[in-house]
Amino acid sequence: MKTEQPYSQRKIVNDPVHGFISIPDNILYSLIEHPYIQRLRRIKQLGLTSLVYPGAVHTRFQHTLGAFFLMGTAISVLRNKGCQISENESTAAHSAIIMHDIGHGPFSHALEQTLIESLNHEDISLLLMDKLNVHFKGALSEAIDIFKGNTDKLFLHQLVSSQLDMDRLDYLKRDSFFSGVSEGVIGSDRIIKMLEIKNNELVVEGKGIYSIEKFLVARRLMYWQVYLHKTALVAERMLIHILKRAKDLALNKQDVPAPPFLKTFLEKRFCKKDFLSNPKILEDFIMLDDNDIMSALKQWRNHRDPVLAKLSSNLLNRRLLKIEISDTPYSKEIIEQLKKEKGPLLNLSKEEMDYFVFTDHISNSAYNVGQENINILYKDGTLKDISRASDMLDHNAFAKTVNKYILCYPK
Amino acid sequence: MKTEQPYSQRKIVNDPVHGFISIPDNILYSLIEHPYIQRLRRIKQLGLTSLVYPGAVHTRFQHTLGAFFLMGTAISVLRNKGCQISENESTAAHSAIIMHDIGHGPFSHALEQTLIESLNHEDISLLLMDKLNVHFKGALSEAIDIFKGNTDKLFLHQLVSSQLDMDRLDYLKRDSFFSGVSEGVIGSDRIIKMLEIKNNELVVEGKGIYSIEKFLVARRLMYWQVYLHKTALVAERMLIHILKRAKDLALNKQDVPAPPFLKTFLEKRFCKKDFLSNPKILEDFIMLDDNDIMSALKQWRNHRDPVLAKLSSNLLNRRLLKIEISDTPYSKEIIEQLKKEKGPLLNLSKEEMDYFVFTDHISNSAYNVGQENINILYKDGTLKDISRASDMLDHNAFAKTVNKYILCYPK
Amino acid sequence: MKTEQPYSQRKIVNDPVHGFISIPDNILYSLIEHPYIQRLRRIKQLGLTSLVYPGAVHTRFQHTLGAFFLMGTAISVLRNKGCQISENESTAAHSAIIMHDIGHGPFSHALEQTLIESLNHEDISLLLMDKLNVHFKGALSEAIDIFKGNTDKLFLHQLVSSQLDMDRLDYLKRDSFFSGVSEGVIGSDRIIKMLEIKNNELVVEGKGIYSIEKFLVARRLMYWQVYLHKTALVAERMLIHILKRAKDLALNKQDVPAPPFLKTFLEKRFCKKDFLSNPKILEDFIMLDDNDIMSALKQWRNHRDPVLAKLSSNLLNRRLLKIEISDTPYSKEIIEQLKKEKGPLLNLSKEEMDYFVFTDHISNSAYNVGQENINILYKDGTLKDISRASDMLDHNAFAKTVNKYILCYPK
Amino acid sequence: MKTEQPYSQRKIVNDPVHGFISIPDNILYSLIEHPYIQRLRRIKQLGLTSLVYPGAVHTRFQHTLGAFFLMGTAISVLRNKGCQISENESTAAHSAIIMHDIGHGPFSHALEQTLIESLNHEDISLLLMDKLNVHFKGALSEAIDIFKGNTDKLFLHQLVSSQLDMDRLDYLKRDSFFSGVSEGVIGSDRIIKMLEIKNNELVVEGKGIYSIEKFLVARRLMYWQVYLHKTALVAERMLIHILKRAKDLALNKQDVPAPPFLKTFLEKRFCKKDFLSNPKILEDFIMLDDNDIMSALKQWRNHRDPVLAKLSSNLLNRRLLKIEISDTPYSKEIIEQLKKEKGPLLNLSKEEMDYFVFTDHISNSAYNVGQENINILYKDGTLKDISRASDMLDHNAFAKTVNKYILCYPK
Repeated sequence: MKTEQPYSQRKIVNDPVHGFISIPDNILYSLIEHPYIQRLRRIKQLGLTSLVYPGAVHTRFQHTLGAFFLMGTAISVLRNKGCQISENESTAAHSAIIMHDIGHGPFSHALEQTLIESLNHEDISLLLMDKLNVHFKGALSEAIDIFKGNTDKLFLHQLVSSQLDMDRLDYLKRDSFFSGVSEGVIGSDRIIKMLEIKNNELVVEGKGIYSIEKFLVARRLMYWQVYLHKTALVAERMLIHILKRAKDLALNKQDVPAPPFLKTFLEKRFCKKDFLSNPKILEDFIMLDDNDIMSALKQWRNHRDPVLAKLSSNLLNRRLLKIEISDTPYSKEIIEQLKKEKGPLLNLSKEEMDYFVFTDHISNSAYNVGQENINILYKDGTLKDISRASDMLDHNAFAKTVNKYILCYPK
Repeated sequence: MKTEQPYSQRKIVNDPVHGFISIPDNILYSLIEHPYIQRLRRIKQLGLTSLVYPGAVHTRFQHTLGAFFLMGTAISVLRNKGCQISENESTAAHSAIIMHDIGHGPFSHALEQTLIESLNHEDISLLLMDKLNVHFKGALSEAIDIFKGNTDKLFLHQLVSSQLDMDRLDYLKRDSFFSGVSEGVIGSDRIIKMLEIKNNELVVEGKGIYSIEKFLVARRLMYWQVYLHKTALVAERMLIHILKRAKDLALNKQDVPAPPFLKTFLEKRFCKKDFLSNPKILEDFIMLDDNDIMSALKQWRNHRDPVLAKLSSNLLNRRLLKIEISDTPYSKEIIEQLKKEKGPLLNLSKEEMDYFVFTDHISNSAYNVGQENINILYKDGTLKDISRASDMLDHNAFAKTVNKYILCYPK
Repeated sequence: MKTEQPYSQRKIVNDPVHGFISIPDNILYSLIEHPYIQRLRRIKQLGLTSLVYPGAVHTRFQHTLGAFFLMGTAISVLRNKGCQISENESTAAHSAIIMHDIGHGPFSHALEQTLIESLNHEDISLLLMDKLNVHFKGALSEAIDIFKGNTDKLFLHQLVSSQLDMDRLDYLKRDSFFSGVSEGVIGSDRIIKMLEIKNNELVVEGKGIYSIEKFLVARRLMYWQVYLHKTALVAERMLIHILKRAKDLALNKQDVPAPPFLKTFLEKRFCKKDFLSNPKILEDFIMLDDNDIMSALKQWRNHRDPVLAKLSSNLLNRRLLKIEISDTPYSKEIIEQLKKEKGPLLNLSKEEMDYFVFTDHISNSAYNVGQENINILYKDGTLKDISRASDMLDHNAFAKTVNKYILCYPK
Repeated sequence: MKTEQPYSQRKIVNDPVHGFISIPDNILYSLIEHPYIQRLRRIKQLGLTSLVYPGAVHTRFQHTLGAFFLMGTAISVLRNKGCQISENESTAAHSAIIMHDIGHGPFSHALEQTLIESLNHEDISLLLMDKLNVHFKGALSEAIDIFKGNTDKLFLHQLVSSQLDMDRLDYLKRDSFFSGVSEGVIGSDRIIKMLEIKNNELVVEGKGIYSIEKFLVARRLMYWQVYLHKTALVAERMLIHILKRAKDLALNKQDVPAPPFLKTFLEKRFCKKDFLSNPKILEDFIMLDDNDIMSALKQWRNHRDPVLAKLSSNLLNRRLLKIEISDTPYSKEIIEQLKKEKGPLLNLSKEEMDYFVFTDHISNSAYNVGQENINILYKDGTLKDISRASDMLDHNAFAKTVNKYILCYPK
């Protein structure tokens, strides 16, 4: 049996959220040092949200380290409760959480709707994990299986990806910490202390029910107050329109200045097959980060295309479109009317106005009944879904997806 | 118009929860310095709860200062939103919150069921406020009116006493802070920033809805995790039985050593009329605090009455009765059976066993619909009760009082 | 080899300072549950300091748990650096720290100058440890040896008692936390991470030098701002005078109401031999706590002796004597003059005025060169005393004891 | 007299360090919204330090807001102590602090040694302030005077720039917060509460002496532990060498891909006169931020020049040179020897090795005696420099600049 590494051979990282994070000097450290993970230092966790919450410039790298730390805590709690987790399984679960965000590009959601259309970040994550596994000579196979859910010990997968995974426990706490929205803070320590295993699945001890309720309420609060904050939404929509426009121009052979690895994705559309057949595409993707987008915006603000120029300049200087939010969809008439009204003021054609007047819909549900449920374990051994176990939360409200609609237009 | 006092003439108190609390050197400072308020330094906010949460030894005095601080913040926010609050009204509201807990005795709930049977702490508060008002030559009349709700500006009363008052906002945060149950922490800053006045009543801005949801969930969590923690419950029940027994013995002319001002309440029963006709009773009450009860327990642990001796000694050394909790009442049979079983082991008669085997019921509701509702103010000016405004919380669950039953018996 | 106990058999205590503290269900838990340790729940860590800092009502029990927690952290850090510490040694060191404050009475420093004159709290601690060791059938022998320094592994003793012990690391952080004097906060986590063993002694890694400087500066700040705060000083002096007067009266056969175990120490003087020959004395000592003193004050405030009555009433209601502080001693003339001036106003004789007008001297040194030095370990293996290693701190200033003089008199 | 703006017309920003920051909707808000200030959102406060402390990615914009907030607190404290500060003066001081960092470029210190050689960031700040003053039609004249020290009320300048200015008070707290080096935390609240004015200069009340000592010790700790952390130093040196090399290549007409506004500074050297005569230079400077440098590194990692390519690739992937630190300078021989030894391994010429093997010197002093002293004000009205007032700090050590030397070379 492998013994734990002496402390002196561990690397220690300071984290403002969790304190000291120690990393054993083995494959886990090598993995974190790998350029694929180091790259996450250059990708902000919350994209343009820092335009609303100036403190929220923390990176996906920090979040990755934080989730890695919580994984260690969770495994230690579960082992102490008698759950068998071998050293290899522990390393694999740690590796899986280190890699869980590896496929994210800069301003992920914006990118997925524009530059990388046919793959989402999960697809790219799997492509990159396979490449890493080759690099590490197969040492990551078990980690990848855990990530995919191909394991008998389903709870290891659930620690990486479920409605109560280490990913969520870290990001809620971290996003709350850095945005300064202190109400989003969750008791990740206590929740982890309440974890248990039943039939190889992750469950929560009965006395943890109030902590889970509070976690779900905090999560919902973070959604409406931070993740779906209307100023962040309009900024992201503007970025999407900028990237779309830049790509349209580039596809039409117009010059759109950008670093070569960004040009790759402006000048051509790729499908998943392309990524598999042409390794250079993935290599270029790996080079992309927030810096290239922001640097390009500054070049594009003088572009001869007025749509690209105006949007870029406005986003750069935080002159955002006006945004309204509603429980019901906005009618075509309203949109057409706004285009007609605002077009002449901006000296833009009706087609060009599509980039400045538009509607979109957003949705969120506090808890997805049926998908990787959060189960409460009672002392008599029975299990109950949290939405049934809680006497405060409305089971139906829980199940419901809240839909809202936004309307953006020039001031 | 009176101008605000220069800073240098203010007293500054360090508070671990809110930071620096500054007190103007006028009637407010004199009030805080009065022995009736200073006495609250000797009464713990959470009674015997520190037997479960060792940090929770904070006093009613600290809480009083904290609520006083929040009152200042709230008034400043409301004034900045255009609400007219005169300097006199502000002083009165501050005075009212300083006095709001003045009638609490040591281990308040235990006391009200034993030594002080015919008055509750609110009754005594009003008696003491009147005495203070005489002492301050009528300067507290407006404060007492606000406390009682006799004011056109109802919101001033609501800041002192309602489901969203400064009392609750402070104690939830403070009890959470000192107990170390960090999940109970509420965003009192943010909630206060969201307060508004509509028709002279306190309401909450629409965008504060998630903060209120979180406040209510945190409050419920604190109830089940701290205020109604079963170890604290059993300790309090033991104290009630100790005081009851001591009083029974004293009423039967047996010697029960205690300081004279405690003896007053052991040797005789008083009704409200007695308090009014005999000022010495209230004077003796004012002398009572946690120290007398705890000091007496140590004398009583050797009392020749085995019930008083055993209960006192056990509570003192934290050898608590066993406690069970259930959603349904415990039957008489179970209780009789336990008495029969445990009596001989303790060498006690069936009557004496009433002090060691007993049941009780506890209840809590997250939010009282209909009583001083928390109203959300929408931009169009409409109001909605939080239990209706929230799409997450179950309106019916909200309205419901949760009842639980406890059973206590010797190990 | 004994393996660590599974988590589920551990007791978990919430601590607002360190978070969750887990206690293994073995002798350590039994020790903490013992009435001698439980008694520390009823003794405030900082005595009357809460008259200045209302939050500082935390108890010696909390501090004991906190120091116990840090001991576990330190042992784990040292083991991970390759230091051999057996399971038995670890348990002994933990036991020693649990017992380190066991001999403290209520308002310890006041008591040692009045009721318990011939023994200090360290003497009583050793008496009580021996009694506990009998109770635990010798299982505490190694712990007592560590406490006394009778061990080859001197660092175990140093973890319990030295200029960088777990006692100090906890109390500085805790006193700072509860008083709200946030500047006193020290990085106990980081300091412990920097501990090393050299020649069986506790030393600090070279890169920890700035943390130690900061620890010493914070410690000094806490002394002048909290421990030697002049309002706390005058309150303590008043209590000393109250207890002295009460004892004088009792020795002169006057009636001084008090619980019997407090009367024991008022009515007679005991030397160390008495404690050894008459076990009842120690038993009565064990019963004493803050509550008895505070409860007695309230009885004494009406005593026919005007000195006892006035001092008791004033301390109770926080009407403190005036206090001045100076770098040089106050002359006899000043004191005599004040007595003459103030005596008639209080209607007291010259002798009685000794209790109201008096001077005293206080001293503090940031660091005691020569006594259990804090040594810095350099990479080349050499050691240097912190007062020499630091290029910021004045070595001579360090060695120096700062003396100040106080003068107290009625307003 | 202008009255304070109602709260509802203020913008509120969440700051994780100070909480809610409110900005009046007047020139101060317009100034913050100006692209020159918004640009600071894209410049990290601590440059490459996040390679050591991953949390330290906070921006100069956040720091600017934080210093702005502290300015408000300080002015309010001083006014409450009777100091006359008009509404105009307050606005000017606030404006000055908003602009205090305006001239910083990306990775400021690296830039000043490479791309912008003949001006430092203070020079550029003044150029930009003048441009802003034109834009705001002279409304910033008083602010600029305060910034420069051209004011009778010298303390206003000292709040912006001195050894105890709002700049330092914010950045120490903020850098400590985000790096997770909690020992650097300073009591900015308390320090500000202790500020006083004497002879129009900023001084500190006598009882604040311990807070100032602690502030200076914390500052020194932050220097050695964060600002001069050796990993951050080597990373910065690598960036300097990258920019130098890129500029050398560009000056020699080799193609060095970069956005046009970065190319401006690579392809030509400018002196201060150029900045004044050619407005385009300053306009290009204003466009520069962290993103351009980081994006360029990724293009340069494949450059045909091996020095530029290798350094860029290594910095990007955090493969840093080895760094040693010493109290004495490194000899030429050691450096030559290392070049000879490592050159062939990297396949580089002796000249090219200058970029990989080099020495440098760093220095720091805790406190600069003679420069904008920190004066302590005693009750009798006398002033004493902190280095004389403190009995703990070594006056001579204080005055001393600590010099250290670094040696960098390939692993």
